[in-house]
Amino acid sequence: TLDKTEQTNNSNAHPKLILTAQGVKDIRAQLGTIPIFDKTLATVKEEVDAEIASGIHMPIPKDYSGGYSHDRHKRNFVVLQKAGVLYQILDDEKYAKYVKDMLMQYEAMYKTLPVHPKTRSYARGKLFWQCLNDSNWLAYVSQAYDCIYNYLSEDERQQLETNLFRPFADYISVENPQFYNRVHNHSTWGNAAVGMIGLVMDDDELVQRALYGIKDANLDANAKDNDGGFINKDGKAGFLANLEEPFSPDGYYTEGPYYQRYAMYPFLIFGEALQNVKPELEIFKYKDSVLLKSVNALLQLSDAKGNFFPLNDGQKGMSTKTNALVSAVDITYHFGNQDAGLLSVAKAQDKVMLDDTGLSVALGLKENKEEPFSKTSINLSDGSDGDEGGVAILRAKNEDLTLVFKYAAQGLSHGHYDKLSFSLYDKTDEVLQDYGLARYVNIEQKGGGNYLKENKTWAKQTIAHNTLTINETSHFNGKYDVGSQHHSVLHYFSSEDETIQVVSAKEDNAYPGSELLRTMALIYDEDLGKPFILDIMKVNSITKNQYDLPFYYFGQVLSTNFEYETPKTLNVLGSKNGFQHVYLEAKSKKLSNNGQFSWMHQNKFYSLTTITNPNDELLFTRIGANDPDFNLRRDPAIQLRRKNTDNTVFVSVIESHGNYSPVTELATNSRSEIKELKVLLDTEDYTAITIATVNDKTKIFITANTNASKKVKHAVEINGTSYNWTGTHYYK
Amino acid sequence: TLDKTEQTNNSNAHPKLILTAQGVKDIRAQLGTIPIFDKTLATVKEEVDAEIASGIHMPIPKDYSGGYSHDRHKRNFVVLQKAGVLYQILDDEKYAKYVKDMLMQYEAMYKTLPVHPKTRSYARGKLFWQCLNDSNWLAYVSQAYDCIYNYLSEDERQQLETNLFRPFADYISVENPQFYNRVHNHSTWGNAAVGMIGLVMDDDELVQRALYGIKDANLDANAKDNDGGFINKDGKAGFLANLEEPFSPDGYYTEGPYYQRYAMYPFLIFGEALQNVKPELEIFKYKDSVLLKSVNALLQLSDAKGNFFPLNDGQKGMSTKTNALVSAVDITYHFGNQDAGLLSVAKAQDKVMLDDTGLSVALGLKENKEEPFSKTSINLSDGSDGDEGGVAILRAKNEDLTLVFKYAAQGLSHGHYDKLSFSLYDKTDEVLQDYGLARYVNIEQKGGGNYLKENKTWAKQTIAHNTLTINETSHFNGKYDVGSQHHSVLHYFSSEDETIQVVSAKEDNAYPGSELLRTMALIYDEDLGKPFILDIMKVNSITKNQYDLPFYYFGQVLSTNFEYETPKTLNVLGSKNGFQHVYLEAKSKKLSNNGQFSWMHQNKFYSLTTITNPNDELLFTRIGANDPDFNLRRDPAIQLRRKNTDNTVFVSVIESHGNYSPVTELATNSRSEIKELKVLLDTEDYTAITIATVNDKTKIFITANTNASKKVKHAVEINGTSYNWTGTHYYK
Ligand SMILES: [Ca+2]
Ligand SMILES: [Ca+2]
Ligand SMILES: [Ca+2]
Ligand SMILES: [Mg+2]
Ligand SMILES: [Mg+2]
Ligand SMILES: [Mg+2]
Ligand SMILES: [Mg+2]
Repeated sequence: TLDKTEQTNNSNAHPKLILTAQGVKDIRAQLGTIPIFDKTLATVKEEVDAEIASGIHMPIPKDYSGGYSHDRHKRNFVVLQKAGVLYQILDDEKYAKYVKDMLMQYEAMYKTLPVHPKTRSYARGKLFWQCLNDSNWLAYVSQAYDCIYNYLSEDERQQLETNLFRPFADYISVENPQFYNRVHNHSTWGNAAVGMIGLVMDDDELVQRALYGIKDANLDANAKDNDGGFINKDGKAGFLANLEEPFSPDGYYTEGPYYQRYAMYPFLIFGEALQNVKPELEIFKYKDSVLLKSVNALLQLSDAKGNFFPLNDGQKGMSTKTNALVSAVDITYHFGNQDAGLLSVAKAQDKVMLDDTGLSVALGLKENKEEPFSKTSINLSDGSDGDEGGVAILRAKNEDLTLVFKYAAQGLSHGHYDKLSFSLYDKTDEVLQDYGLARYVNIEQKGGGNYLKENKTWAKQTIAHNTLTINETSHFNGKYDVGSQHHSVLHYFSSEDETIQVVSAKEDNAYPGSELLRTMALIYDEDLGKPFILDIMKVNSITKNQYDLPFYYFGQVLSTNFEYETPKTLNVLGSKNGFQHVYLEAKSKKLSNNGQFSWMHQNKFYSLTTITNPNDELLFTRIGANDPDFNLRRDPAIQLRRKNTDNTVFVSVIESHGNYSPVTELATNSRSEIKELKVLLDTEDYTAITIATVNDKTKIFITANTNASKKVKHAVEINGTSYNWTGTHYYK
Repeated sequence: TLDKTEQTNNSNAHPKLILTAQGVKDIRAQLGTIPIFDKTLATVKEEVDAEIASGIHMPIPKDYSGGYSHDRHKRNFVVLQKAGVLYQILDDEKYAKYVKDMLMQYEAMYKTLPVHPKTRSYARGKLFWQCLNDSNWLAYVSQAYDCIYNYLSEDERQQLETNLFRPFADYISVENPQFYNRVHNHSTWGNAAVGMIGLVMDDDELVQRALYGIKDANLDANAKDNDGGFINKDGKAGFLANLEEPFSPDGYYTEGPYYQRYAMYPFLIFGEALQNVKPELEIFKYKDSVLLKSVNALLQLSDAKGNFFPLNDGQKGMSTKTNALVSAVDITYHFGNQDAGLLSVAKAQDKVMLDDTGLSVALGLKENKEEPFSKTSINLSDGSDGDEGGVAILRAKNEDLTLVFKYAAQGLSHGHYDKLSFSLYDKTDEVLQDYGLARYVNIEQKGGGNYLKENKTWAKQTIAHNTLTINETSHFNGKYDVGSQHHSVLHYFSSEDETIQVVSAKEDNAYPGSELLRTMALIYDEDLGKPFILDIMKVNSITKNQYDLPFYYFGQVLSTNFEYETPKTLNVLGSKNGFQHVYLEAKSKKLSNNGQFSWMHQNKFYSLTTITNPNDELLFTRIGANDPDFNLRRDPAIQLRRKNTDNTVFVSVIESHGNYSPVTELATNSRSEIKELKVLLDTEDYTAITIATVNDKTKIFITANTNASKKVKHAVEINGTSYNWTGTHYYK
């Protein structure tokens, strides 16, 4: 028989899935000279050795996530994959034996294992409460199996494949088509798991099922999953459909970065497996290299600390350091064009994949090829054809200020009713937050770690976002079926001029009869000092409405230029659509032409200046009403309310203008630079705003509301002065 | 004439006050070879050069702190001192000329300067709104004058002394005895300022006035200052009285670390000046070296990040990195016994004094002599004789858990009504907070940066602290005159055994008719895992009362072992004594024998387990009611309420038991280790508690309530078992 490392040209050689026989050869040759790889290997070895020493634990499945049986089986598949890798790289049979022994115990248990006893999922697994986690298991364990394939006898392989792997793959696919046969991140995991075990077993039926879905599945087009998402409206299924549909041509994943991060592992690991075993598919070139583009998009969708923007159902704190991004970065570096910027991300991750791709990265770092990863202003289209809105990111001064503007499609079942909403970051903090989700992932005390009811009643609602709510109802009346049919539309995006970068988008469907056009500019003008945001929300409506425009800040009220009254007891702001979760802490008494509000957070000073009418109200609100389990954070907002109005425009400036040291006790630039904002002109075609500063500088910004051509010439006369320019907007 | 650096043996040589002629010689010899000194010097030079380039700014005084004239004159005295030093060290006349020019402008202005126009202070200054800031000015400027003394002509010196320094010193002393002639940190600044200019001018009248106060001042013994503190009850005054009175023999400063930090500079800089010019006084040996001891005490009064515990009116975030601690550490190192631990504090400060003491530190660091500064469990007595209560700090596992227990005297006018209160820290965060003060120092938008009315109505009140409030009134009925007559009394302190460290103290005066004995143990027992706190608050009262015992945590409610109800609208908890500032967010429905509450903050898991009676209530409260200017933080508490009870005991365990990673989404040890707490025995003489863990381990703790001798033998029989031990407490 051939030594397993000499079987590189044999397509039935193992390992072949992620590690390859040639890769193993190369890695062994470099071991001890590739620091980041060596360090990762040492950590993994220590971890696996400790697990081997503690013995095999094989509890009967019974818990939700956070419970012992769940966590133990999750740990098992992670350790199995690592032990398989260690067997290959270190050529030490103790690892192969450990993998074999545990797989045999799984085989013994799985044969007679009933469906998991917990009933909450629309697709219950066997090892776990949902097929999703069973799929995670199989995607990892197929790698372990591949690594010890040649260590096992033919009979042992047959035993495992017949009693464990094949039934396992069938259970999560043909026995659960409502899970497997759809376009959804759950299905991507299912497809990858089935495909990977199929590639290892050389079972083409499974591989075809992975790529193209179950051919004859009959699913109710109107059925919904636990999150309220349609299970399969249009019959699309399989890995290629999952690659086709949720990614835009720019690599934006319609559920947002938190779910994209989660999905990256099966997309890229199965991509790597297909590239290794079926290179003729050219999976990384599929859809104009969308898999590789998606990794760049995802890295761009993070703040200066590398934390992903919590769009839709995103949990805050998830970052580019997550393991799924280690594989994404290494695979993109290896199978893409060795972008030196990725090496600095890998360096920050401080670990690599223990495979051919990690070796490439380790060699790149060893040769000091890394460059800083370039975080830029970027417009990411949404929709499989890139024509369903998008997410724009404007950045100034090396991430000193970052605006995230969302004008995307619904984002499947994890989408929020947040058309034209935005969030704002400075170098170290959220300035105006996106609330994120109402869930404590894997913290069992909080609803088993699952979505809490407040995710629907609060986090998804429009009022939970920095965008316009009309008549205390959410966009599309909070109806997923309706929201799923629409998306906002880009008006223009302009990031060429560092002095003023602008994004403008329209939303005509969220509120039938009302048209919203929001234009947001990130202005970094040496005349004015620090970068700031100009926000213009223009509304046309056929009815008179109540408008609410909140800004979710953090920290302590510092000062206002208006008087306000505080109630004796705190009452809720409304009765439904999220308003029932908000307390009214104070209300402005009388506003002049500009309302100015300054606050302080983490020793920094911020201000919002907004144009106000005499009948407008500025509300100080705080989240937390009707929250019987303390599931919500008690975060505040300042909220502009305008009643009984049809056509109108909301104009605001948001500044991060100073800081405070509690050690020196010195306050620097603690006051706003803005003296006054004025609407100079507001017509169907143009909106013109003047920004006057306390240093008596005045700037004018004019945006073209109807013609977004970059080439058209505009001529506008305002109060006897002519303004002439070419393109979407004017600033001087 | 002699070269100025050769006049070392001439007591009239200059500089002599802080820098000495010999020191200048030594520094010049070492320049370029002493990294931390060289770096500090370069920073200071850059700063002063920029100021010189920007010209001299001499606004007419008009603002409160935070306003331009205030900030500019504050900046001026800082820069003058530094420019003087640069002249000496760099021997560059441009610095001397700059100092001279600015001093001459001050001389021109001061001659005719009226009292400062702002009227809020009980002792208005001339350059600033209060004499305190004028004193700061003189303490710094006397150093600048000393540095350029020999650069000036006799006539110039006479002009400055006659028109500026002498009248300035007289104004802040004899013309404002209510400021100068008392025991208070304000007066310490005044004394130091007058003494330092006296030493430079060789004016013994001023030096005597500094050391011993104004001899014939006639002050109303019942007059109070802006903070409500008595101005001078007992006629004590002068620097030595200020050194005698507020420092305990352990070096604890009765106002607490925040004010001690502020006071350190005048204490130590004038100490250094006296040591240099009048070494025969042996000021650093005064009162058993209390000045040097106070620096160690202050360093111990900080959390693992070096932030001072915000006892009394302390602003959070002030830390051992503040400039006043740079001088304190350098002076203590130089004039003390060159403690290598201080070098590591200096290294973290990353700068040194530009004088003889900074040179010593720089040489110590250059020679790699530094060792880690030892943060220990320590009991610091309060009161000039050390017999007026104190502050105990218990630390476990290299600051993994730090308990701060306050059983001190009133703490002068900045004291809070917080007898037997505590705060708890882990390595990176506050676990159970001391609220601190209601003030935003130097942030003019918030009441000019001064104390806010909520400091009195909230921050000082008992309910704002983690201690017992009886019948919704504060200790001593919130009366300063009464509180000032009393202090708590140490029962025992035991930190020898790392497994269990205990502090116990009594308070019999805060509530006439009620006796409080609080015993707090920091238990770090390998059998039980992580360190935790056992808290036993025993009350005897002649009346039936309502008791409220809050625990001010941070973050998100995770779980409870009891049901609770949340109201539709939020109402205040009470009408006065701080209760009017608290909202009731939820109330327990029915409690069993233990109430358990878990929360999550900064990705860490915490639990409170407390013994409850069926009629007890656990209240979820939040600060922020009746706060019309948003001056208070919206921080939560869990509050145990027991009604209609005379003698009772409150027993709780507080744990920091786990953590969460938002990147791996894994929760580790998210649940409390405590299964049940029980009172086994509670008599006049003994309280015995059992702690049972979820791992079925049970420990017993018995504290002697009446006999605190470390030598006495105890024998107690409980439920047929005999417990025998020697000393204050038993634990097994
Ligand atoms: Ca499409
Ligand atoms: Ca005393
Ligand atoms: Ca005494
Ligand atoms: Mg959202
Ligand atoms: Mg959802
Ligand atoms: Mg306090
Ligand atoms: Mg006070």
